[in-house]
Amino acid sequence: MLTAISMSAIATNGVVPAGGSYYMISRSLGPEFGGAVGICFYLGTTFAGAMYILGCIEILLIYIVPAAAVFKMEGLEGAEAEAALLNNMRVYGTIVLSFMAIVVFVGVKYVNKLALVFLACVILSILAVYAGVIKTSFDPPFFPVCLLGNRTLVSKGIDICAKTIEQGNATVTTKLWRAFCDSEFLNATCDEYFTNNNVTQIQGIPGVTSGILAENLFSTFMEKNTILEKRGVPAVLDPEAPVTNSNRYVLADITSFFTLLVGIYFPSVTGIMAGSNRSGDLQDAQKSIPVGTILAITTTSFIYMSSVILFGACVDGVVLRDKFGEGVNGNLVIGTLAWPSPWVIVFGSFFSTCGAGLQSLTGAPRLLQAIARDSIIPFLRVFGHGKANGEPTWALLLTACICEIGILIASLDAVAPILSMFFLMCYMFVNLACALQTLLRTPNWRPRFKFYHWALSLLGMSLCLTLMFLCSWYYAIVAMVIASCIYKYIEFCGAEKEWGDGIRGISLSAARYALMRLEEGPPHTKNWRPQILVLMGLDGEQSVEQPRLLSLTSQLKAGKGLTIVGACVEGTYLNNQPQAQTADQSLRKLMEVEKVKGFSQVVISSNLRDATSHLIQAGGLGGLRHNTVLVSFPKNWRQAEERHRCRNFIEVVRETTAAHLALLVTKNISAYPSNGERFTEGHIDVWWIVHDGGLLMLLPFLLRQHKVWRKCKIRIFTVAQMDDNSIQMKKDLMTFLYHLRFDAEVEVVEMHDSDISAYTYEKTLVMEQRSQILKEMHLTKNEREREIQSITDVSRGSIRRKNPSNLHPQRSIAEESVGGSEEKPEEESVRLSRPRQVQLIQGKNATPTPTSPTSPIAPTPAAVSPGEEVQMTWTDDVEKPNNPAVVNPESMKDMFNMKPEWENLNQSNVRRMHHAQELNGVIVKKSKEAKLVLLNMPGPPKNRNGEENYMEFLEVLTEGLNRVLLVRGGGREVITIYS
Amino acid sequence: MLTAISMSAIATNGVVPAGGSYYMISRSLGPEFGGAVGICFYLGTTFAGAMYILGCIEILLIYIVPAAAVFKMEGLEGAEAEAALLNNMRVYGTIVLSFMAIVVFVGVKYVNKLALVFLACVILSILAVYAGVIKTSFDPPFFPVCLLGNRTLVSKGIDICAKTIEQGNATVTTKLWRAFCDSEFLNATCDEYFTNNNVTQIQGIPGVTSGILAENLFSTFMEKNTILEKRGVPAVLDPEAPVTNSNRYVLADITSFFTLLVGIYFPSVTGIMAGSNRSGDLQDAQKSIPVGTILAITTTSFIYMSSVILFGACVDGVVLRDKFGEGVNGNLVIGTLAWPSPWVIVFGSFFSTCGAGLQSLTGAPRLLQAIARDSIIPFLRVFGHGKANGEPTWALLLTACICEIGILIASLDAVAPILSMFFLMCYMFVNLACALQTLLRTPNWRPRFKFYHWALSLLGMSLCLTLMFLCSWYYAIVAMVIASCIYKYIEFCGAEKEWGDGIRGISLSAARYALMRLEEGPPHTKNWRPQILVLMGLDGEQSVEQPRLLSLTSQLKAGKGLTIVGACVEGTYLNNQPQAQTADQSLRKLMEVEKVKGFSQVVISSNLRDATSHLIQAGGLGGLRHNTVLVSFPKNWRQAEERHRCRNFIEVVRETTAAHLALLVTKNISAYPSNGERFTEGHIDVWWIVHDGGLLMLLPFLLRQHKVWRKCKIRIFTVAQMDDNSIQMKKDLMTFLYHLRFDAEVEVVEMHDSDISAYTYEKTLVMEQRSQILKEMHLTKNEREREIQSITDVSRGSIRRKNPSNLHPQRSIAEESVGGSEEKPEEESVRLSRPRQVQLIQGKNATPTPTSPTSPIAPTPAAVSPGEEVQMTWTDDVEKPNNPAVVNPESMKDMFNMKPEWENLNQSNVRRMHHAQELNGVIVKKSKEAKLVLLNMPGPPKNRNGEENYMEFLEVLTEGLNRVLLVRGGGREVITIYS
Repeated sequence: MLTAISMSAIATNGVVPAGGSYYMISRSLGPEFGGAVGICFYLGTTFAGAMYILGCIEILLIYIVPAAAVFKMEGLEGAEAEAALLNNMRVYGTIVLSFMAIVVFVGVKYVNKLALVFLACVILSILAVYAGVIKTSFDPPFFPVCLLGNRTLVSKGIDICAKTIEQGNATVTTKLWRAFCDSEFLNATCDEYFTNNNVTQIQGIPGVTSGILAENLFSTFMEKNTILEKRGVPAVLDPEAPVTNSNRYVLADITSFFTLLVGIYFPSVTGIMAGSNRSGDLQDAQKSIPVGTILAITTTSFIYMSSVILFGACVDGVVLRDKFGEGVNGNLVIGTLAWPSPWVIVFGSFFSTCGAGLQSLTGAPRLLQAIARDSIIPFLRVFGHGKANGEPTWALLLTACICEIGILIASLDAVAPILSMFFLMCYMFVNLACALQTLLRTPNWRPRFKFYHWALSLLGMSLCLTLMFLCSWYYAIVAMVIASCIYKYIEFCGAEKEWGDGIRGISLSAARYALMRLEEGPPHTKNWRPQILVLMGLDGEQSVEQPRLLSLTSQLKAGKGLTIVGACVEGTYLNNQPQAQTADQSLRKLMEVEKVKGFSQVVISSNLRDATSHLIQAGGLGGLRHNTVLVSFPKNWRQAEERHRCRNFIEVVRETTAAHLALLVTKNISAYPSNGERFTEGHIDVWWIVHDGGLLMLLPFLLRQHKVWRKCKIRIFTVAQMDDNSIQMKKDLMTFLYHLRFDAEVEVVEMHDSDISAYTYEKTLVMEQRSQILKEMHLTKNEREREIQSITDVSRGSIRRKNPSNLHPQRSIAEESVGGSEEKPEEESVRLSRPRQVQLIQGKNATPTPTSPTSPIAPTPAAVSPGEEVQMTWTDDVEKPNNPAVVNPESMKDMFNMKPEWENLNQSNVRRMHHAQELNGVIVKKSKEAKLVLLNMPGPPKNRNGEENYMEFLEVLTEGLNRVLLVRGGGREVITIYS
Repeated sequence: MLTAISMSAIATNGVVPAGGSYYMISRSLGPEFGGAVGICFYLGTTFAGAMYILGCIEILLIYIVPAAAVFKMEGLEGAEAEAALLNNMRVYGTIVLSFMAIVVFVGVKYVNKLALVFLACVILSILAVYAGVIKTSFDPPFFPVCLLGNRTLVSKGIDICAKTIEQGNATVTTKLWRAFCDSEFLNATCDEYFTNNNVTQIQGIPGVTSGILAENLFSTFMEKNTILEKRGVPAVLDPEAPVTNSNRYVLADITSFFTLLVGIYFPSVTGIMAGSNRSGDLQDAQKSIPVGTILAITTTSFIYMSSVILFGACVDGVVLRDKFGEGVNGNLVIGTLAWPSPWVIVFGSFFSTCGAGLQSLTGAPRLLQAIARDSIIPFLRVFGHGKANGEPTWALLLTACICEIGILIASLDAVAPILSMFFLMCYMFVNLACALQTLLRTPNWRPRFKFYHWALSLLGMSLCLTLMFLCSWYYAIVAMVIASCIYKYIEFCGAEKEWGDGIRGISLSAARYALMRLEEGPPHTKNWRPQILVLMGLDGEQSVEQPRLLSLTSQLKAGKGLTIVGACVEGTYLNNQPQAQTADQSLRKLMEVEKVKGFSQVVISSNLRDATSHLIQAGGLGGLRHNTVLVSFPKNWRQAEERHRCRNFIEVVRETTAAHLALLVTKNISAYPSNGERFTEGHIDVWWIVHDGGLLMLLPFLLRQHKVWRKCKIRIFTVAQMDDNSIQMKKDLMTFLYHLRFDAEVEVVEMHDSDISAYTYEKTLVMEQRSQILKEMHLTKNEREREIQSITDVSRGSIRRKNPSNLHPQRSIAEESVGGSEEKPEEESVRLSRPRQVQLIQGKNATPTPTSPTSPIAPTPAAVSPGEEVQMTWTDDVEKPNNPAVVNPESMKDMFNMKPEWENLNQSNVRRMHHAQELNGVIVKKSKEAKLVLLNMPGPPKNRNGEENYMEFLEVLTEGLNRVLLVRGGGREVITIYS
């Protein structure tokens, strides 16, 4: 009923051509589900057809014309009789099947006409039962059943239901006596049970009014060959004694259990739904399906249920098997009630079973044809063709063949339960499809049938599932495994159908929902992943300039974050769309080659700088934004024609800084390894000069998860002054790395004190600070914990911190929670005050005055805008008005002529360049052979004056190294020592 | 074991402060899960503490010093004895609890020291059992058990295990005799079972080598008060006879079942994990937790399992209850084996239970404190405070109180199973957290403990879940309901914690995955939802100009699609970031007010047009792109200072057309209803002049799902010429709407033939075409189906169709599949050719020559770029070189001066304006009172010359109407008649 409601909703949501439930499922849940369920449903229908045919022949041979048997069954017993019956069924089944196939082939219209005849038979037999029930309630028929004790006796061979009869004066024994005793005399030795118990005769059909209903109500399942015992009748029985003469009693012919009863009840109700396969033949499926299905199911259910109840109400609990013998059919038992004659039921059953077989043979090929026409399963494609009138010839042939297999097997008991599973699975998916579409609320879901609800469909679905597993969990699993295999096969064949299925709708909703959830705030340090925006350069033909950038991106994919590959085209959207499309295609192609999973985005703008700026500003959506920009260092930037690239590059550096994005700059990108290469040894060297959110350390960890870099070892170098305790520094650093769970060698490189420049000054400061923080790790457990607890106490979700805390990696949680500090207990704020004072390189304060390098705590913890504090102070120098040589436009001119004029530059720049050379010397010495060198990237100059100097500085710093990756943090911590 | 592995992985992924499993779960799965599970775990631990205390007092009172009982238990029987015991336990329990609480309060270090003592006791008792096992294997103790038949007799009151003894010559009866017979004489009447069966004496502890192991292997559960029967011993029994003298036999004292055994076994193994609560006290939790937990669990499991097996192997299956009496403890039974004395076990059990209670009392407050300090549950906050040394005073007090409740209840049997559930739930979530983090692969997931795998964690998780439901599904459900309530409460309290939990990580991964799935191609017509990009204007203060645009967006949210609210700021990113942030904030605020769920995007660019263009080009991400642009018609566009807005507007129209996006233009937006208004009557009028993808019809359907428009009725107006058969047209239209499942009144408006202009010409053409297509719906079922089937046959996923099929709504599937038509059977291509020829308004061909308005099929089905064919041909006219007045710059000047110069314009424009006025007249006449009028929006002029004309045309068309929504399709069908 629930399934019928779901089906009606789907069927009234637009035209449903042939295929019925298959069409609905495949169009709602996609070709894979549709195909898997459809094939199962097809097999189910076909085998059900075979079973119907076998059933109708069984009725024919046993009840109607037993004489027609080719293999004689009379006189045979047990297995032999069964074998003979099966052989008869095989012969007649094949004949009937051939006949039916021809009827279907010749014309469906005959089938439709015959259907009416069959329907009439069914209705007639049901009416006969009802008539019988009414009649027996006031005029119970004479239908005696003979009981010995409480056991029912087989009526065959018994004339009178008594042990002895009085004939005149003599007591004469009956046939019954002779059946149980060794002689006909009264002194014969008799069966013990026979001796102990009396014979009674009861009414087999006592009528509704006799109170038999209550008696039959709580019956139980029976094992095969159990003796049917009438409840409520007393009997004397020695429980230890074995049962003798059991062939005289009526025995249960099958072991009955829940599955079996479902198996009997299920097809009788749902056979009607199989008609939905022929939805294509309906004049207006949208009207017929809801009305037809629901009506049919309701009435059938009602009729069957009431028949069962009435039957229970009218006949004795002891099933009257001895009237009908072996292979008794449920309908025939009910037939006992029929008025005027059980033959009405016999013929009714025969015709209805016959008709059901015919319907299966008509419906199944149409279903197969519908599946084949969708060509989701390549080798089925031939079955899509049909006769001129649309009759599916090949499909019919296949169906008949499969049906014939079923008939040749003849004994389908083992296969039968799995068919129920197939049907149930189909209904489950119809329900699922309805529930899903209702919940997804696509605008296109506007069924005209309004009486559905997703909860009903879900209920129907879970009932189907429960029933599957209740009936027999192993058959349910077998059915599901079969369906999954078909699903996988269809997926493997790559069904490229786009039917607008709900699965896609789910993706859409899921993407939207997940993005909405992500909206609030940036992710926590723990969830930080590199979400990379790759800025690709395009050449004149809109093809990609540095494909290796994508190789590197692919090698970083261990981060499992978002990747957006962006490119810019100059022009207007109206005019330059084709170029943009070409660019997009080449990007996509390259992404596929390099196995970069992500999105491409090509922006057309009147100038490249705006376009790049747009990408940096507005790439991504909601919470799925890039947080890292990957760009390659401009080659030949000194040449005049490449100058705009250099400018563009510096603009990118500036904007990423402003947008608090991390920046990765590859130098010499063409030398980077492709995805196919494998380094079998070597090192990834990290030159950890300032701590910049930890990205510098995270990157080699991510790279090493890719095959290319797997065998590389990570070395972390850090620079110490001569007067530093470099041994202690190394130890502290190792502890720090241990807590960060990074495996790396640590090396501290000492540099001369005379090299104290802005750069080294900062570095030293950072290093000393860091060592001090690291030392705090030696605090007693209790102190540390209290500190952490007190901090997490007061955290109120203010993620964007005001304090420049990026230098304290192990404090990321602590610092983030400073926002709502008013709640913090005083005793703890004392302890807290120390780490929070640890603020260094505060923008303007970091002038390269070599004062107090040993005083690590910066004096003014003034509010500094986030992201700024980790910049190296290149910019500030350049901006300083007391650097007249830089601000002076004359000297600017000089700067553009590179090398020769080095002497003309102010002292600060000279010192910086000198230091860069020194540092470069050390790096080259240590990392010459390294596979990759990661370096901190200094902050960009604030105005155009410093740009050349900046580029030159970067060149000097990285000279003589093969592959360099300059890394600049996004102003937020990306690693944490916390779980 | 599996949970220990998962826990080790989490614990080694960074510092774990106090809180243990709570900390891990809350930091991995979020505060809600963490809090819910944590509170449950806390309650579990606390009540477990109460149970331990009660258990140790039970041992004390029953075995060690029974004389210490306050309420005397001697001589009492049954319920009275039990009540006395419970009262004793209450008194002593309270005393012990107070003592323990003081110990914990005074100092945890004493507890830690005591723990070693307790551990020693446990080890000693276990060793005693092993020693006993070894001893009994070669020297079984004398431990006789007396059997009557196969029933074990209670040893109390029996001196000799025999019915009679020979004393000299006389046969004297024993005490046993007297217990079963009515006199001591040999001729007494005795119990039937006693008479029928013999008395035997067997060895209670036969030793490992006796083969008792095999005998005990397949034992079954027992009901309470069942007589323990020794298997393999023969006995004479009348099954019908009632059991007499059952107080003489040893009876099962409890009904044993799976849950009970899990309840006994579980705490014995997992008590050790409760130690994780005290993770804060550990010197290095990261090292201790994996080593400690795994070692402890492995060894305990091994010891308990081996003890059980050994016990089974050494003692008779008949439990030796009569040696120990009621309330027997599992350990004590094992104790029978202990060497040298069972007292080792008695004391061992006493101390270990005592110690476990103390551990619970130490761990639970720390767990509570950890939860309270996170302040996810407001009223628990006070428990976060502690003594100066970090001892959680208040938490301890609460724990002691809860514990005292448990002790006062004393009989915790009903609560016990739910505690197991709490524990299991906690372990389940620890496993889940590990599996989740492994699968999400955040870069931060780098546990030092490498021997984990997500599959193991998942297995552990499912085992926990299975065990919960296996034990007792109702308790499992109760536990889950409790946890869900806490979860919901925490959610309700709005825990704003951001710990970077995995749930957020899931959102991120889900969003990314879902978007990746969506990448390929645009969605199918069936999945089409309006994904709206709302272009908002900003005023000087960066606040929103037309807030009602967002009201309308909100009212359209039945589409459940994406919403991007975009705005543009002029400037550079480096300089104008503050403005952009202000704008973003005001957008977000307004979105919240108007309940628009979506994303805001503010773009800074050097010019507004570029910024708008960029939003239209690159808003959204991957498959989650906008497909519809919503913009308001510029007010006062005629004023010179607003001219740039007008230009901008037309540019938007042009770009949306180029990008194949749908466009919605609101006129008079300020008159639109707010979300609070409710129309109680009225109409939404659709003027369906050309069919443009169906958006025009879909919109009112979506609007009507919002409360504002719910009571409005939809009317669809269409324009027919005088010579059209408007009755048939109406009928066909109604059929069409029926198939589209739209409820609407249909009205056909007739207009004079003399009004044939470009506009009406197209319209007529479209209408006639449409009627012809609609007529095809009357084809026989078979023909139609074959057609559809043959088309779906050859479809190969080429969604972007070459053919301008937008005019054939019911062909959307058909048209999409034309791509790979080489496979199509010839017979069908004949039929197909007809509908495919139905192509109209092919760009240039639609000049307003009034030739053959009755020939519906356009003569040249030449390839037209998609999206263009549905434009109305405004552009083409304007572009025509034979319209010199327009091209001539002189006349352009004239056009800028509006109304007065109408006569100067060329005839085509005049005619168009005239028609616009005519149409406007009709619309005003019919829809004056409508709440909303939806109209087709004509295509934009191709060059700047036509812009003024275009705007004027729109003004004329919509004059006199209150609320107008101009709709322009995106060049693709958005409604389909297919399911």
